[in-house]
Amino acid sequence: MAKIAVCGYGVVGKGVAEVLTENADSISRNAAEDISLKYILDIREFPGDPFEKLFVHDFSIIEKDPEVTVVVETMGGVGAAFDFTKRALLSGKSVVTSNKELVAKFGHELIAIAKERNLNYLFEASVGGGIPIIRPITQCLAANRLDSVYGILNGTTNYILTEMIQNNASFEDALHQAQANGFAEADPTADVEGLDAARKICILSDLCFGRHIDPEGVRTQGITGVSLTDVEYAKRLNCKIKLLGRGLRTGADSATAFVAPHLVSVSSLLSNVDGVMNGIVVHGNALGDAMFYGAGAGARPTASAVVADVIDAVKHSKARKYLDWLDAPPGYFTDSCYVRSRWYVRAETSLQQIGWAFGKVNFVTYPGASTTESAFATEEYDERTMQKLTSGMNVKSMFRILD
Amino acid sequence: MAKIAVCGYGVVGKGVAEVLTENADSISRNAAEDISLKYILDIREFPGDPFEKLFVHDFSIIEKDPEVTVVVETMGGVGAAFDFTKRALLSGKSVVTSNKELVAKFGHELIAIAKERNLNYLFEASVGGGIPIIRPITQCLAANRLDSVYGILNGTTNYILTEMIQNNASFEDALHQAQANGFAEADPTADVEGLDAARKICILSDLCFGRHIDPEGVRTQGITGVSLTDVEYAKRLNCKIKLLGRGLRTGADSATAFVAPHLVSVSSLLSNVDGVMNGIVVHGNALGDAMFYGAGAGARPTASAVVADVIDAVKHSKARKYLDWLDAPPGYFTDSCYVRSRWYVRAETSLQQIGWAFGKVNFVTYPGASTTESAFATEEYDERTMQKLTSGMNVKSMFRILD
Repeated sequence: MAKIAVCGYGVVGKGVAEVLTENADSISRNAAEDISLKYILDIREFPGDPFEKLFVHDFSIIEKDPEVTVVVETMGGVGAAFDFTKRALLSGKSVVTSNKELVAKFGHELIAIAKERNLNYLFEASVGGGIPIIRPITQCLAANRLDSVYGILNGTTNYILTEMIQNNASFEDALHQAQANGFAEADPTADVEGLDAARKICILSDLCFGRHIDPEGVRTQGITGVSLTDVEYAKRLNCKIKLLGRGLRTGADSATAFVAPHLVSVSSLLSNVDGVMNGIVVHGNALGDAMFYGAGAGARPTASAVVADVIDAVKHSKARKYLDWLDAPPGYFTDSCYVRSRWYVRAETSLQQIGWAFGKVNFVTYPGASTTESAFATEEYDERTMQKLTSGMNVKSMFRILD
Repeated sequence: MAKIAVCGYGVVGKGVAEVLTENADSISRNAAEDISLKYILDIREFPGDPFEKLFVHDFSIIEKDPEVTVVVETMGGVGAAFDFTKRALLSGKSVVTSNKELVAKFGHELIAIAKERNLNYLFEASVGGGIPIIRPITQCLAANRLDSVYGILNGTTNYILTEMIQNNASFEDALHQAQANGFAEADPTADVEGLDAARKICILSDLCFGRHIDPEGVRTQGITGVSLTDVEYAKRLNCKIKLLGRGLRTGADSATAFVAPHLVSVSSLLSNVDGVMNGIVVHGNALGDAMFYGAGAGARPTASAVVADVIDAVKHSKARKYLDWLDAPPGYFTDSCYVRSRWYVRAETSLQQIGWAFGKVNFVTYPGASTTESAFATEEYDERTMQKLTSGMNVKSMFRILD
């Protein structure tokens, strides 16, 4: 009988308690041992909750209980969550988390502590919710040199963009709808400004390329600048606008990561990842492209990934040696402004000026399009060059095209 | 330094040798040990081959060499491959394979031998080529009760159907093209008749539902009965015709598996899996749907999966306890003729007779369609009922619709 504690009884914490109870049979069969929830840590009281008797308010009760071998951290943030994770590891307990902010910021430190003590720090749920992605990258693709990883990493923004594309909803209407449906928080900043996606692409890049990338250094552009006009022009380019996180190997020991809206060809599988779903593409030199698709958020899908990690931690008391990345040497992180791509530009400017700047471009229009602005797709340039070339234009939107 | 042997120097065996050499650095980093190819077993000679010096023709050389800890079986078939796998396990070596026929037919026996000796029998490459699917199912989805697994499991038939759908090629032309491009064998029977997909859906069902399903008992319908006329009618139903392998839990301790062409809605992600690519959907009660996509065949993608298993076998000398299924009790396997679905029917018959048999149906037509036959989509029925209802009609095609 393995005993575990859950810290943080929010959406994911509740989902974990629920899945552990509902699927107890198959879980104990897979873990080759019963798994029992002994404590739930939360500052709040939950009178009438089915797990009412398990609540504690002081982490040291969990920390000091030698029966607890695995601590689940579903609190979020990098304050108490960091403190409790460290203390749990230092007191000999493995830790499982869904906290992308903590993993992206301090994952390398926490993994190092776990490894030293031969414990596990597992975080399958931190990227892509319930989608299996961390283990596939680290185990199943271990024979590959991984060159790039990218995808739709945030369900809230993908829901909003899908509403704009499919139902012609404005950004504001789509956001309100997302909030009404529980797909967006009251303060949607972390989602719509791309911060959530930035944390996730950092974790994926860390795993794929082997070194820590600080999310704070990552260029992050959200979707607040995407208008229905852009959606319409994108359609004329046979594309959908999607918010992508992208990680790229840029040299023998260098890499970059960034988050930005992209025009994605409708013929690609990724462009068909709609609504709150996530899709993540990994490119390996032996495998080629693989894509992983599923629910990127939500109580039960995320709990599915957390509990799989709990099973793994229970079955393997020793540290999972494949989950690992190192600090980055100076010069490892390449600014993504040097990444080349084709671009979509919408600007108030003269055709003549566009011609001077870019030579031949691919103009697009649609019935009812504004007559005061032009939209076009360019050849491949890096972002700095694009800024120079468009410097005299009144640029309304400028997004990369994914090729 | 871990030493391994490859048995069978065909497409996959060559790919394994190539990937082991090309990615030696990252492989030894991931395995925490160098991995060296000591022997290649083949009955043929390969003069001038870069691995010329490694060839042996007698399996007992490998069997008796205590330095060899992992044997890769890329021979195919259930004859010598079965014999060598058993002998390798009995002489204390883990075995890694891409041989779906052997795993589908005798996987439970070979896993049992491996477990008894605390060795590994690993087969990630047996389904979906390089797509990570075996580990995700068994590890990442361990917290779920898995209810169904289905997908496009054969690249050759998906290539042929894609050519028919996108380029209006006849089945024969598309098959010749597939053969010319190396996507189909000279004798394409195992692919086009669905046998390859049947083996794969058995392995997936074994893993998802926990008990052995014999591929020989699985209803298997290939794509030779799919015509351009059907493709055209399917388009009018907003569907694409795809060859699917499907595994379904049918009760507390029963399941079914089958292979058949299906009409798949164009709005689904699976319908957009085109060409030689594979896509596999798994449904879990906590996660919902997840899809795994990538190259389902080919030397390097398949080698990617094989070598990942080799790394796993080298890192973990003890048996992977999660890879496991049991013999099935009598009554476990449900005949798929009892699975209900909507159906697409094309038949030479009168509207009156269709009305008598089905009541209201959804008729479809297209400009230039034959006037002597009717095509329609039905409500949900099982296959036996469908056979009764259509017994007086001259049925040309009858395919399930995936909902």
